Amino acid sequence: MIFYGGINIQPRNDMNVILVDVNEVIESKLVLSEHRAKHIVKVLKSDIGDTVKLGIINGNLGEGTIISINRKYPFCVEIDTVFDLLPPIKPQIDLLLALPRPIMLKRIFSQAASLGVGTFHITNANRVEKSFWEAGLLQPNEYMQHLVQGLEQAVDTVVPNVVFHRRFKPFVEDYIPQISEKYSHLVFAHPDSQQRLHNIFMTQPGKILLAIGPEGGWVDFEVEKFQEYGFCGFTIGGRILKVDTAVINIHGRIMAELERLG
Amino acid sequence: MIFYGGINIQPRNDMNVILVDVNEVIESKLVLSEHRAKHIVKVLKSDIGDTVKLGIINGNLGEGTIISINRKYPFCVEIDTVFDLLPPIKPQIDLLLALPRPIMLKRIFSQAASLGVGTFHITNANRVEKSFWEAGLLQPNEYMQHLVQGLEQAVDTVVPNVVFHRRFKPFVEDYIPQISEKYSHLVFAHPDSQQRLHNIFMTQPGKILLAIGPEGGWVDFEVEKFQEYGFCGFTIGGRILKVDTAVINIHGRIMAELERLG
Repeated sequence: MIFYGGINIQPRNDMNVILVDVNEVIESKLVLSEHRAKHIVKVLKSDIGDTVKLGIINGNLGEGTIISINRKYPFCVEIDTVFDLLPPIKPQIDLLLALPRPIMLKRIFSQAASLGVGTFHITNANRVEKSFWEAGLLQPNEYMQHLVQGLEQAVDTVVPNVVFHRRFKPFVEDYIPQISEKYSHLVFAHPDSQQRLHNIFMTQPGKILLAIGPEGGWVDFEVEKFQEYGFCGFTIGGRILKVDTAVINIHGRIMAELERLG
Repeated sequence: MIFYGGINIQPRNDMNVILVDVNEVIESKLVLSEHRAKHIVKVLKSDIGDTVKLGIINGNLGEGTIISINRKYPFCVEIDTVFDLLPPIKPQIDLLLALPRPIMLKRIFSQAASLGVGTFHITNANRVEKSFWEAGLLQPNEYMQHLVQGLEQAVDTVVPNVVFHRRFKPFVEDYIPQISEKYSHLVFAHPDSQQRLHNIFMTQPGKILLAIGPEGGWVDFEVEKFQEYGFCGFTIGGRILKVDTAVINIHGRIMAELERLG
Protein backbone atom coordinates (compact mmCIF):
# COMPACT_ATOMS: atom_id res chain seq x y z
CA MET A 1 0.00 0.00 0.00
CA ILE A 2 1.55 3.26 -1.12
CA PHE A 3 0.90 6.31 0.99
CA TYR A 4 1.48 9.56 -0.81
CA GLY A 5 -1.20 12.10 -0.01
CA GLY A 6 0.28 13.22 3.27
CA ILE A 7 3.84 13.92 2.19
CA ASN A 8 4.56 17.55 2.87
CA ILE A 9 7.14 18.85 0.44
CA GLN A 10 7.51 22.22 -1.19
CA PRO A 11 6.11 22.77 -4.67
CA ARG A 12 8.79 22.04 -7.22
CA ASN A 13 9.07 23.22 -10.80
CA ASP A 14 10.30 19.77 -11.80
CA MET A 15 6.90 18.15 -11.37
CA ASN A 16 6.05 17.30 -14.97
CA VAL A 17 3.16 15.09 -13.90
CA ILE A 18 1.20 15.10 -10.63
CA LEU A 19 0.96 11.60 -9.18
CA VAL A 20 -1.95 10.49 -7.03
CA ASP A 21 -2.87 7.36 -5.14
CA VAL A 22 -5.62 5.30 -6.76
CA ASN A 23 -7.70 5.70 -3.58
CA GLU A 24 -7.70 9.46 -3.97
CA VAL A 25 -9.79 9.20 -7.15
CA ILE A 26 -13.48 8.73 -6.34
CA GLU A 27 -15.88 8.38 -9.28
CA SER A 28 -13.32 10.17 -11.49
CA LYS A 29 -13.17 13.14 -9.08
CA LEU A 30 -9.95 14.10 -7.28
CA VAL A 31 -9.43 16.67 -4.54
CA LEU A 32 -5.86 17.84 -4.07
CA SER A 33 -4.53 19.82 -1.12
CA GLU A 34 -1.14 20.68 0.35
CA HIS A 35 1.90 20.67 -1.94
CA ARG A 36 0.17 19.32 -5.02
CA ALA A 37 -2.59 21.92 -4.88
CA LYS A 38 0.02 24.60 -4.18
CA HIS A 39 1.94 23.40 -7.25
CA ILE A 40 -1.16 23.91 -9.42
CA VAL A 41 -1.81 27.35 -7.93
CA LYS A 42 1.72 28.75 -7.66
CA VAL A 43 3.80 27.00 -10.33
CA LEU A 44 1.32 26.03 -13.03
CA LYS A 45 -0.87 29.06 -12.23
CA SER A 46 -3.84 27.11 -13.52
CA ASP A 47 -7.44 28.29 -13.61
CA ILE A 48 -10.87 26.62 -13.66
CA GLY A 49 -11.26 24.75 -16.98
CA ASP A 50 -7.49 24.27 -17.41
CA THR A 51 -6.08 20.77 -17.69
CA VAL A 52 -3.20 19.30 -15.72
CA LYS A 53 -1.18 16.17 -16.41
CA LEU A 54 -1.93 13.43 -13.88
CA GLY A 55 -0.88 9.87 -13.16
CA ILE A 56 -1.97 7.13 -10.81
CA ILE A 57 0.92 5.68 -8.84
CA ASN A 58 1.61 2.26 -10.40
CA GLY A 59 -1.24 2.91 -12.84
CA ASN A 60 -2.15 4.89 -15.94
CA LEU A 61 -1.24 8.40 -16.97
CA GLY A 62 -3.99 10.85 -17.89
CA GLU A 63 -5.20 14.36 -17.34
CA GLY A 64 -7.59 16.35 -15.23
CA THR A 65 -9.80 19.36 -15.77
CA ILE A 66 -9.94 21.79 -12.88
CA ILE A 67 -13.49 22.31 -11.65
CA SER A 68 -12.81 24.39 -8.55
CA ILE A 69 -9.78 26.03 -7.01
CA ASN A 70 -8.87 27.70 -3.72
CA ARG A 71 -5.80 29.85 -4.34
CA LYS A 72 -5.13 30.64 -0.69
CA TYR A 73 -3.83 28.57 2.20
CA PRO A 74 -4.98 25.84 2.69
CA PHE A 75 -4.80 25.37 -1.07
CA CYS A 76 -7.41 23.08 -2.57
CA VAL A 77 -8.08 22.03 -6.14
CA GLU A 78 -10.98 19.85 -7.35
CA ILE A 79 -10.35 17.97 -10.57
CA ASP A 80 -12.31 15.82 -13.02
CA THR A 81 -9.96 13.08 -14.22
CA VAL A 82 -9.39 10.68 -17.12
CA PHE A 83 -6.63 8.06 -16.93
CA ASP A 84 -6.33 6.56 -20.39
CA LEU A 85 -2.59 6.30 -21.16
CA LEU A 86 -0.21 3.49 -20.29
CA PRO A 87 2.95 4.60 -18.47
CA PRO A 88 6.22 4.41 -20.40
CA ILE A 89 8.00 1.07 -20.58
CA LYS A 90 10.83 0.87 -18.05
CA PRO A 91 14.38 0.36 -19.23
CA GLN A 92 15.29 -3.23 -18.40
CA ILE A 93 17.91 -2.19 -15.84
CA ASP A 94 17.88 -3.23 -12.17
CA LEU A 95 20.43 -1.69 -9.81
CA LEU A 96 22.46 -3.44 -7.12
CA LEU A 97 24.05 -0.87 -4.81
CA ALA A 98 26.19 -1.09 -1.71
CA LEU A 99 24.19 1.03 0.75
CA PRO A 100 25.35 4.62 0.14
CA ARG A 101 25.40 7.52 2.60
CA PRO A 102 21.73 8.55 3.12
CA ILE A 103 22.07 11.99 1.52
CA MET A 104 23.52 10.33 -1.55
CA LEU A 105 20.91 7.56 -1.58
CA LYS A 106 18.15 10.20 -1.69
CA ARG A 107 19.66 11.71 -4.83
CA ILE A 108 20.20 8.29 -6.37
CA PHE A 109 16.59 7.26 -5.68
CA SER A 110 15.14 10.31 -7.41
CA GLN A 111 17.65 10.53 -10.25
CA ALA A 112 17.66 6.80 -11.02
CA ALA A 113 13.86 6.70 -10.82
CA SER A 114 13.77 9.51 -13.37
CA LEU A 115 16.05 7.50 -15.67
CA GLY A 116 14.02 4.34 -15.10
CA VAL A 117 14.94 1.44 -12.86
CA GLY A 118 12.94 -1.73 -12.19
CA THR A 119 14.28 -2.80 -8.80
CA PHE A 120 16.90 -1.44 -6.41
CA HIS A 121 18.74 -4.19 -4.52
CA ILE A 122 20.66 -2.46 -1.75
CA THR A 123 23.21 -4.55 0.09
CA ASN A 124 25.74 -4.31 2.84
CA ALA A 125 29.43 -4.38 1.87
CA ASN A 126 32.74 -4.15 3.64
CA ARG A 127 33.11 -0.42 3.00
CA VAL A 128 29.54 0.49 3.98
CA GLU A 129 29.47 2.45 7.24
CA LYS A 130 27.36 0.52 9.76
CA SER A 131 25.50 3.67 10.82
CA PHE A 132 23.96 3.99 7.34
CA TRP A 133 21.71 1.02 8.21
CA GLU A 134 20.07 3.09 10.96
CA ALA A 135 19.00 5.87 8.58
CA GLY A 136 15.32 6.80 8.56
CA LEU A 137 15.54 6.85 4.77
CA LEU A 138 15.40 3.04 4.76
CA GLN A 139 11.72 3.20 5.77
CA PRO A 140 9.29 2.98 2.82
CA ASN A 141 7.36 6.12 3.81
CA GLU A 142 10.68 7.99 3.78
CA TYR A 143 12.26 6.78 0.54
CA MET A 144 8.98 6.68 -1.38
CA GLN A 145 8.86 10.46 -1.77
CA HIS A 146 12.25 10.49 -3.49
CA LEU A 147 11.22 7.77 -5.92
CA VAL A 148 7.94 9.56 -6.64
CA GLN A 149 9.84 12.81 -7.18
CA GLY A 150 11.91 11.10 -9.88
CA LEU A 151 8.78 9.67 -11.51
CA GLU A 152 7.07 13.08 -11.44
CA GLN A 153 10.16 14.53 -13.11
CA ALA A 154 10.24 11.88 -15.85
CA VAL A 155 6.43 11.53 -16.33
CA ASP A 156 6.31 7.91 -15.21
CA THR A 157 4.02 6.22 -12.69
CA VAL A 158 5.62 2.87 -11.94
CA VAL A 159 7.48 2.96 -8.62
CA PRO A 160 10.73 0.97 -8.58
CA ASN A 161 10.91 -1.87 -6.06
CA VAL A 162 13.39 -1.44 -3.24
CA VAL A 163 14.85 -4.46 -1.44
CA PHE A 164 17.40 -4.14 1.35
CA HIS A 165 19.88 -6.96 2.07
CA ARG A 166 21.69 -6.44 5.35
CA ARG A 167 24.21 -9.27 4.87
CA PHE A 168 26.35 -9.42 1.75
CA LYS A 169 27.28 -13.10 1.75
CA PRO A 170 23.78 -14.65 1.97
CA PHE A 171 22.57 -12.01 -0.48
CA VAL A 172 25.04 -13.10 -3.14
CA GLU A 173 25.14 -16.81 -2.30
CA ASP A 174 21.45 -17.50 -1.63
CA TYR A 175 19.41 -14.64 -3.07
CA ILE A 176 21.22 -13.87 -6.34
CA PRO A 177 20.87 -17.48 -7.62
CA GLN A 178 17.10 -17.18 -7.10
CA ILE A 179 16.83 -14.10 -9.32
CA SER A 180 19.75 -14.46 -11.73
CA GLU A 181 17.75 -16.48 -14.25
CA LYS A 182 15.63 -13.50 -15.19
CA TYR A 183 18.68 -11.50 -16.27
CA SER A 184 20.63 -11.89 -19.50
CA HIS A 185 23.56 -10.01 -17.92
CA LEU A 186 24.86 -9.50 -14.39
CA VAL A 187 27.57 -6.82 -14.47
CA PHE A 188 29.57 -4.99 -11.82
CA ALA A 189 31.66 -1.84 -12.14
CA HIS A 190 35.24 -2.59 -11.17
CA PRO A 191 38.22 -0.39 -12.07
CA ASP A 192 40.62 -3.38 -12.23
CA SER A 193 38.60 -5.04 -14.98
CA GLN A 194 39.87 -4.85 -18.56
CA GLN A 195 36.43 -5.40 -20.00
CA ARG A 196 34.43 -2.60 -21.64
CA LEU A 197 30.63 -2.56 -21.75
CA HIS A 198 30.48 -2.71 -25.55
CA ASN A 199 32.34 -6.02 -25.41
CA ILE A 200 29.87 -7.42 -22.87
CA PHE A 201 26.76 -6.38 -24.77
CA MET A 202 27.29 -7.92 -28.20
CA THR A 203 23.75 -9.03 -28.98
CA GLN A 204 20.40 -7.60 -27.89
CA PRO A 205 20.27 -8.28 -24.15
CA GLY A 206 17.32 -9.02 -21.92
CA LYS A 207 17.16 -7.69 -18.37
CA ILE A 208 20.36 -6.39 -16.83
CA LEU A 209 21.46 -6.29 -13.20
CA LEU A 210 24.04 -3.53 -12.74
CA ALA A 211 26.08 -3.57 -9.50
CA ILE A 212 27.88 -0.44 -8.29
CA GLY A 213 30.04 -0.52 -5.18
CA PRO A 214 30.46 1.77 -2.19
CA GLU A 215 32.85 4.72 -1.95
CA GLY A 216 36.26 3.07 -2.06
CA GLY A 217 34.92 0.18 -4.13
CA TRP A 218 34.22 -3.49 -3.53
CA VAL A 219 36.86 -5.40 -1.55
CA ASP A 220 38.56 -8.47 -3.05
CA PHE A 221 36.23 -10.92 -1.28
CA GLU A 222 33.20 -9.17 -2.75
CA VAL A 223 34.72 -9.06 -6.23
CA GLU A 224 35.42 -12.79 -6.02
CA LYS A 225 31.88 -13.53 -4.83
CA PHE A 226 30.40 -11.56 -7.71
CA GLN A 227 32.57 -13.43 -10.19
CA GLU A 228 31.71 -16.77 -8.59
CA TYR A 229 27.99 -16.04 -8.92
CA GLY A 230 28.05 -15.06 -12.58
CA PHE A 231 28.74 -11.33 -12.60
CA CYS A 232 30.99 -9.90 -15.28
CA GLY A 233 33.24 -6.99 -14.26
CA PHE A 234 33.67 -3.93 -16.46
CA THR A 235 35.59 -0.66 -16.31
CA ILE A 236 34.68 2.81 -17.49
CA GLY A 237 38.28 4.03 -17.25
CA GLY A 238 40.64 5.35 -14.62
CA ARG A 239 38.64 8.29 -13.24
CA ILE A 240 37.24 7.71 -9.74
CA LEU A 241 33.61 8.80 -9.55
CA LYS A 242 31.17 9.42 -6.73
CA VAL A 243 28.54 6.72 -6.45
CA ASP A 244 25.69 8.92 -7.66
CA THR A 245 27.69 10.15 -10.64
CA ALA A 246 28.64 6.55 -11.47
CA VAL A 247 25.03 5.31 -11.28
CA ILE A 248 23.67 8.01 -13.61
CA ASN A 249 26.62 7.84 -15.98
CA ILE A 250 26.70 4.04 -16.30
CA HIS A 251 22.92 3.91 -16.70
CA GLY A 252 23.46 6.10 -19.76
CA ARG A 253 26.30 3.94 -21.05
CA ILE A 254 24.19 0.79 -20.80
CA MET A 255 21.20 2.50 -22.42
CA ALA A 256 23.49 3.53 -25.29
CA GLU A 257 24.44 -0.14 -25.77
CA LEU A 258 20.78 -1.27 -25.59
CA GLU A 259 19.59 1.34 -28.09
CA ARG A 260 22.36 0.50 -30.53
CA LEU A 261 21.52 -3.21 -30.39
CA GLY A 262 17.72 -2.69 -30.19
CA MET B 1 46.13 32.75 -12.30
CA ILE B 2 44.42 30.13 -10.25
CA PHE B 3 43.92 30.84 -6.59
CA TYR B 4 43.29 27.81 -4.49
CA GLY B 5 45.20 27.96 -1.20
CA GLY B 6 42.66 30.13 0.58
CA ILE B 7 39.48 28.23 -0.19
CA ASN B 8 37.96 27.15 3.06
CA ILE B 9 35.97 23.97 2.66
CA GLN B 10 35.46 21.08 4.98
CA PRO B 11 37.63 17.99 4.62
CA ARG B 12 35.93 15.52 2.35
CA ASN B 13 36.40 11.81 2.00
CA ASP B 14 36.12 12.13 -1.76
CA MET B 15 39.50 13.81 -2.15
CA ASN B 16 41.42 11.12 -3.99
CA VAL B 17 44.27 13.50 -4.80
CA ILE B 18 45.23 16.74 -3.07
CA LEU B 19 45.68 19.56 -5.58
CA VAL B 20 48.04 22.45 -5.00
CA ASP B 21 48.98 25.60 -6.84
CA VAL B 22 52.38 25.53 -8.53
CA ASN B 23 53.41 28.55 -6.44
CA GLU B 24 52.87 26.61 -3.23
CA VAL B 25 55.75 24.26 -4.08
CA ILE B 26 59.09 25.83 -3.20
CA GLU B 27 62.23 23.78 -3.93
CA SER B 28 60.08 20.61 -3.84
CA LYS B 29 58.76 21.49 -0.36
CA LEU B 30 55.07 22.09 0.27
CA VAL B 31 53.38 23.37 3.44
CA LEU B 32 49.65 22.66 3.67
CA SER B 33 47.26 24.23 6.17
CA GLU B 34 43.48 24.56 6.55
CA HIS B 35 41.23 21.98 4.87
CA ARG B 36 43.94 20.11 3.01
CA ALA B 37 46.07 19.64 6.14
CA LYS B 38 42.92 18.68 8.04
CA HIS B 39 42.15 16.11 5.36
CA ILE B 40 45.59 14.51 5.84
CA VAL B 41 45.19 14.51 9.64
CA LYS B 42 41.53 13.54 10.01
CA VAL B 43 40.59 11.53 6.91
CA LEU B 44 43.84 9.97 5.72
CA LYS B 45 45.16 9.79 9.33
CA SER B 46 48.69 10.00 7.90
CA ASP B 47 51.92 10.07 9.89
CA ILE B 48 55.46 11.33 9.30
CA GLY B 49 57.05 9.22 6.54
CA ASP B 50 53.70 8.38 4.93
CA THR B 51 53.06 9.36 1.33
CA VAL B 52 50.05 11.22 -0.03
CA LYS B 53 48.87 11.57 -3.61
CA LEU B 54 49.36 15.11 -4.91
CA GLY B 55 48.81 17.06 -8.09
CA ILE B 56 49.69 20.52 -9.35
CA ILE B 57 46.67 22.36 -10.70
CA ASN B 58 47.03 22.29 -14.51
CA GLY B 59 50.27 20.36 -14.05
CA ASN B 60 51.62 16.93 -13.19
CA LEU B 61 50.43 14.36 -10.70
CA GLY B 62 52.86 13.00 -8.13
CA GLU B 63 53.24 12.22 -4.48
CA GLY B 64 54.57 13.69 -1.29
CA THR B 65 56.31 12.31 1.80
CA ILE B 66 55.21 13.88 5.04
CA ILE B 67 58.17 15.38 6.93
CA SER B 68 56.31 17.15 9.73
CA ILE B 69 52.72 17.28 10.92
CA ASN B 70 50.68 19.36 13.39
CA ARG B 71 47.56 17.35 14.27
CA LYS B 72 45.78 20.14 16.11
CA TYR B 73 44.15 23.35 14.98
CA PRO B 74 45.56 25.13 13.04
CA PHE B 75 46.48 21.97 11.19
CA CYS B 76 49.78 22.07 9.32
CA VAL B 77 51.58 19.44 7.23
CA GLU B 78 55.03 19.81 5.64
CA ILE B 79 55.65 17.61 2.61
CA ASP B 80 58.55 16.69 0.34
CA THR B 81 57.11 16.37 -3.19
CA VAL B 82 57.78 14.72 -6.55
CA PHE B 83 55.56 15.49 -9.53
CA ASP B 84 56.50 13.02 -12.25
CA LEU B 85 53.22 11.78 -13.75
CA LEU B 86 51.22 13.32 -16.57
CA PRO B 87 47.54 13.91 -15.75
CA PRO B 88 44.98 11.69 -17.52
CA ILE B 89 43.94 12.64 -21.03
CA LYS B 90 40.61 14.47 -21.04
CA PRO B 91 37.65 13.00 -22.87
CA GLN B 92 37.22 15.09 -25.99
CA ILE B 93 33.86 16.49 -24.85
CA ASP B 94 33.07 20.19 -24.40
CA LEU B 95 29.76 21.19 -22.86
CA LEU B 96 27.41 23.95 -23.96
CA LEU B 97 24.82 24.66 -21.26
CA ALA B 98 22.00 27.13 -20.89
CA LEU B 99 22.85 28.77 -17.56
CA PRO B 100 21.29 26.54 -14.90
CA ARG B 101 20.07 27.48 -11.44
CA PRO B 102 23.22 28.16 -9.34
CA ILE B 103 22.73 25.23 -6.95
CA MET B 104 22.48 22.92 -9.95
CA LEU B 105 25.43 24.53 -11.73
CA LYS B 106 27.61 23.79 -8.67
CA ARG B 107 26.76 20.10 -8.89
CA ILE B 108 27.28 20.08 -12.65
CA PHE B 109 30.70 21.76 -12.33
CA SER B 110 32.00 19.19 -9.87
CA GLN B 111 30.34 16.13 -11.41
CA ALA B 112 31.19 17.02 -15.01
CA ALA B 113 34.77 17.92 -14.00
CA SER B 114 35.04 14.48 -12.41
CA LEU B 115 33.85 12.88 -15.67
CA GLY B 116 36.18 15.05 -17.73
CA VAL B 117 35.20 18.13 -19.74
CA GLY B 118 37.49 20.40 -21.74
CA THR B 119 35.48 23.63 -21.81
CA PHE B 120 32.12 24.72 -20.44
CA HIS B 121 30.35 27.24 -22.67
CA ILE B 122 27.49 28.65 -20.64
CA THR B 123 24.94 30.72 -22.51
CA ASN B 124 21.76 32.61 -21.96
CA ALA B 125 18.56 31.12 -23.37
CA ASN B 126 14.90 32.04 -23.43
CA ARG B 127 14.06 29.83 -20.45
CA VAL B 128 17.01 30.94 -18.28
CA GLU B 129 15.86 33.05 -15.34
CA LYS B 130 17.50 36.47 -15.56
CA SER B 131 18.43 36.41 -11.87
CA PHE B 132 20.77 33.45 -12.44
CA TRP B 133 23.20 35.85 -14.15
CA GLU B 134 23.64 37.72 -10.87
CA ALA B 135 24.82 34.61 -8.97
CA GLY B 136 28.15 34.84 -7.17
CA LEU B 137 28.94 31.41 -8.57
CA LEU B 138 29.74 33.04 -11.93
CA GLN B 139 32.93 34.52 -10.42
CA PRO B 140 36.06 32.40 -11.05
CA ASN B 141 37.06 32.31 -7.37
CA GLU B 142 33.61 30.89 -6.62
CA TYR B 143 33.21 28.26 -9.31
CA MET B 144 36.85 27.17 -9.23
CA GLN B 145 36.41 25.24 -5.97
CA HIS B 146 33.64 23.11 -7.49
CA LEU B 147 35.74 22.28 -10.54
CA VAL B 148 38.73 21.46 -8.32
CA GLN B 149 36.51 19.28 -6.14
CA GLY B 150 35.57 17.23 -9.21
CA LEU B 151 39.22 16.93 -10.25
CA GLU B 152 40.24 15.84 -6.73
CA GLN B 153 37.51 13.20 -6.88
CA ALA B 154 38.64 11.88 -10.26
CA VAL B 155 42.44 12.27 -9.74
CA ASP B 156 42.88 14.81 -12.51
CA THR B 157 44.66 18.17 -12.48
CA VAL B 158 43.54 19.97 -15.62
CA VAL B 159 40.85 22.54 -14.80
CA PRO B 160 38.11 22.86 -17.43
CA ASN B 161 37.78 26.27 -19.07
CA VAL B 162 34.57 28.15 -18.33
CA VAL B 163 33.26 30.78 -20.74
CA PHE B 164 30.02 32.67 -20.12
CA HIS B 165 27.98 34.06 -23.02
CA ARG B 166 25.30 36.47 -21.85
CA ARG B 167 23.54 36.80 -25.22
CA PHE B 168 22.39 33.70 -27.09
CA LYS B 169 22.15 35.10 -30.63
CA PRO B 170 25.67 36.55 -30.97
CA PHE B 171 27.03 33.48 -29.20
CA VAL B 172 25.59 31.14 -31.81
CA GLU B 173 25.91 33.43 -34.83
CA ASP B 174 29.35 34.95 -34.19
CA TYR B 175 31.17 32.83 -31.62
CA ILE B 176 30.22 29.28 -32.63
CA PRO B 177 31.51 29.72 -36.23
CA GLN B 178 34.89 30.71 -34.75
CA ILE B 179 35.20 27.48 -32.74
CA SER B 180 33.15 24.99 -34.73
CA GLU B 181 36.09 23.95 -36.93
CA LYS B 182 37.84 22.23 -34.05
CA TYR B 183 34.88 19.89 -33.50
CA SER B 184 33.97 16.85 -35.55
CA HIS B 185 30.44 16.94 -34.09
CA LEU B 186 28.16 19.63 -32.69
CA VAL B 187 25.14 17.95 -31.07
CA PHE B 188 22.21 19.18 -29.01
CA ALA B 189 19.77 17.22 -26.89
CA HIS B 190 16.26 17.77 -28.17
CA PRO B 191 13.27 15.54 -27.34
CA ASP B 192 11.57 16.22 -30.70
CA SER B 193 14.51 14.82 -32.64
CA GLN B 194 14.26 11.33 -34.13
CA GLN B 195 18.02 10.88 -34.23
CA ARG B 196 19.85 8.60 -31.79
CA LEU B 197 23.46 9.15 -30.78
CA HIS B 198 24.66 5.87 -32.27
CA ASN B 199 23.44 7.05 -35.68
CA ILE B 200 25.34 10.32 -35.32
CA PHE B 201 28.63 8.73 -34.26
CA MET B 202 29.32 6.26 -37.02
CA THR B 203 33.08 6.65 -37.33
CA GLN B 204 35.70 7.61 -34.75
CA PRO B 205 34.91 11.24 -33.95
CA GLY B 206 37.24 14.07 -33.00
CA LYS B 207 36.20 16.69 -30.46
CA ILE B 208 32.54 16.94 -29.60
CA LEU B 209 30.50 19.93 -28.49
CA LEU B 210 27.44 18.73 -26.54
CA ALA B 211 24.65 21.25 -25.94
CA ILE B 212 22.06 20.70 -23.19
CA GLY B 213 19.20 23.11 -22.70
CA PRO B 214 17.59 24.75 -19.69
CA GLU B 215 14.74 23.31 -17.61
CA GLY B 216 11.83 23.32 -20.04
CA GLY B 217 14.16 22.93 -23.03
CA TRP B 218 15.30 25.13 -25.87
CA VAL B 219 12.60 27.24 -27.57
CA ASP B 220 11.94 26.89 -31.31
CA PHE B 221 14.10 29.89 -32.19
CA GLU B 222 17.05 28.38 -30.36
CA VAL B 223 16.55 24.97 -31.96
CA GLU B 224 16.48 26.61 -35.40
CA LYS B 225 19.64 28.61 -34.65
CA PHE B 226 21.48 25.45 -33.57
CA GLN B 227 20.42 23.67 -36.74
CA GLU B 228 21.37 26.67 -38.89
CA TYR B 229 24.87 26.71 -37.35
CA GLY B 230 25.62 23.04 -37.84
CA PHE B 231 24.33 21.32 -34.70
CA CYS B 232 22.67 17.94 -35.02
CA GLY B 233 19.75 17.24 -32.67
CA PHE B 234 19.41 13.91 -30.87
CA THR B 235 16.96 12.32 -28.43
CA ILE B 236 17.53 9.96 -25.52
CA GLY B 237 13.85 9.04 -25.32
CA GLY B 238 10.67 10.40 -23.80
CA ARG B 239 11.68 10.75 -20.15
CA ILE B 240 12.14 14.35 -18.99
CA LEU B 241 15.36 14.69 -16.97
CA LYS B 242 16.79 17.37 -14.74
CA VAL B 243 19.68 19.22 -16.33
CA ASP B 244 22.33 17.72 -14.05
CA THR B 245 21.01 14.20 -14.59
CA ALA B 246 20.97 14.80 -18.34
CA VAL B 247 24.55 16.12 -18.41
CA ILE B 248 25.99 13.16 -16.51
CA ASN B 249 23.88 10.59 -18.33
CA ILE B 250 24.54 11.90 -21.83
CA HIS B 251 28.27 12.27 -21.09
CA GLY B 252 28.21 8.52 -20.41
CA ARG B 253 26.23 7.77 -23.57
CA ILE B 254 28.71 9.71 -25.71
CA MET B 255 31.69 8.06 -23.97
CA ALA B 256 30.11 4.68 -24.73
CA GLU B 257 29.99 5.62 -28.43
CA LEU B 258 33.59 6.90 -28.39
CA GLU B 259 34.94 3.80 -26.66
CA ARG B 260 33.13 1.50 -29.04
CA LEU B 261 34.55 3.33 -32.08
CA GLY B 262 37.99 4.04 -30.55
